[in-house]
Amino acid sequence: SGLVLVKNPHLDLMEEDVLYHLDLGTKTHNLPAMFGDIKFVCVGGSPNRMRAFAQFMRRELGLAAAGEDVADICAGSDRYAMYRAGPVLSISHGMGIPSISIMLHELIKLLHHAKCRDVTIIRIGTSGGLGIEAGSVVITDTAVDSSFQPRFEQVVLDDVVVRSTELDKDLAEELLACGRDIPDFPTLIGHTMCTYDFYEGQGRLDGALCSFSSEKKLEYLRRAYEAGVRNIEMESTAFAALCGLCGLKGESCCFHLL
Amino acid sequence: SGLVLVKNPHLDLMEEDVLYHLDLGTKTHNLPAMFGDIKFVCVGGSPNRMRAFAQFMRRELGLAAAGEDVADICAGSDRYAMYRAGPVLSISHGMGIPSISIMLHELIKLLHHAKCRDVTIIRIGTSGGLGIEAGSVVITDTAVDSSFQPRFEQVVLDDVVVRSTELDKDLAEELLACGRDIPDFPTLIGHTMCTYDFYEGQGRLDGALCSFSSEKKLEYLRRAYEAGVRNIEMESTAFAALCGLCGLKGESCCFHLL
Repeated sequence: SGLVLVKNPHLDLMEEDVLYHLDLGTKTHNLPAMFGDIKFVCVGGSPNRMRAFAQFMRRELGLAAAGEDVADICAGSDRYAMYRAGPVLSISHGMGIPSISIMLHELIKLLHHAKCRDVTIIRIGTSGGLGIEAGSVVITDTAVDSSFQPRFEQVVLDDVVVRSTELDKDLAEELLACGRDIPDFPTLIGHTMCTYDFYEGQGRLDGALCSFSSEKKLEYLRRAYEAGVRNIEMESTAFAALCGLCGLKGESCCFHLL
Repeated sequence: SGLVLVKNPHLDLMEEDVLYHLDLGTKTHNLPAMFGDIKFVCVGGSPNRMRAFAQFMRRELGLAAAGEDVADICAGSDRYAMYRAGPVLSISHGMGIPSISIMLHELIKLLHHAKCRDVTIIRIGTSGGLGIEAGSVVITDTAVDSSFQPRFEQVVLDDVVVRSTELDKDLAEELLACGRDIPDFPTLIGHTMCTYDFYEGQGRLDGALCSFSSEKKLEYLRRAYEAGVRNIEMESTAFAALCGLCGLKGESCCFHLL
């Protein structure tokens, strides 16, 4: 049916669903009227960047003049920022798995309540590249954990639930073809490694509070490259797992910063 | 000496340390002049709340009139917000362990570069209470993970480093005494459980995307209470571990929301 699946029978029995961190709710807002026609959702860490993306999309779609401002739909909350550009929603998710996980829970329930159909969700973020040219865009086929395994472990009460982290292969190929049409944007498909920390988790010798050897770091990164990892960030496994759980067509493409 | 310990020998060999997510750095800013006299750092999730706290502190310290605005020291970055009120620094950390972990790495290096001495760091956040009155303040003696263990597991490259999550007992008692001086603020000392997720990790039957039984949830929460847990949030184990690692006197006190 193209609808978003929410495998929680409690949800439809509730009188009201408050999407607290988005400052939206089923009683306070007419979610089908506000969001029913959404077809694409783009998510990224920084609120300013997601506003700039919405402004860019509005110009691309002929919906606004350059410089025209867009309103933050979640202005009543300072946890996340959300902007609209026609059928495209642009939302920030902060940094790290717990932060994106809260946002995705509320976003996916929003799409469910709004009865959206055939929604594609794309994470557009930044990442550190591995053995690739600076400025490259990595389209993720599979998100992997720090042991290079395609899994996301979610603690549910005291059980560990393991979820798959494969993303949509057709969508990845489609995005790759788009990338090839744009000159000076090296675009490739690869695995993306997701860590729980920016400094120690990614072996930043200079930035960490503890010490480790550069030999160990190089050996680890070489093994990651051999396992197919082409970039490292902090949200992709949770993103892939939650998209998969709810039947959303999802993809992650990250720009490799210098 | 009261100085902040950073156990990374690479740090003092670097020509420049860019505290990227705070938009500060050792070459671009005179950190000792800007921060050398800081004695207290208060951290919390929401940027708006940390601005309001800085404004409150400025009034309490007689440094500003009511309504006077405070400048965001990290205005060049939209990842975190930082404000000053005399010797008190007020900083937001976003939601979840990875987000607070990035901020604490850069904050602790900032205190190190600024040669701050005898700094006390207090997390002032919100949490869900367990078997306590709504509106209570829980002062954490020990942060525990979802198995009620006083430990924080940090993946450093592919090693799992286990760190202690005990907080400063004397500071906890001091804060408890302060709480007792204020009427209508039930204050207690207890364990704080830290999860990686707000919905599934904390067993929110209504809000989660997957389903689980209310019996299992109640049984889990009863075991948590018996283990000494009095509130649940998403940052305390990483906070306690990093304070301990760097010799910072740290404490976490959370307000139990309704």
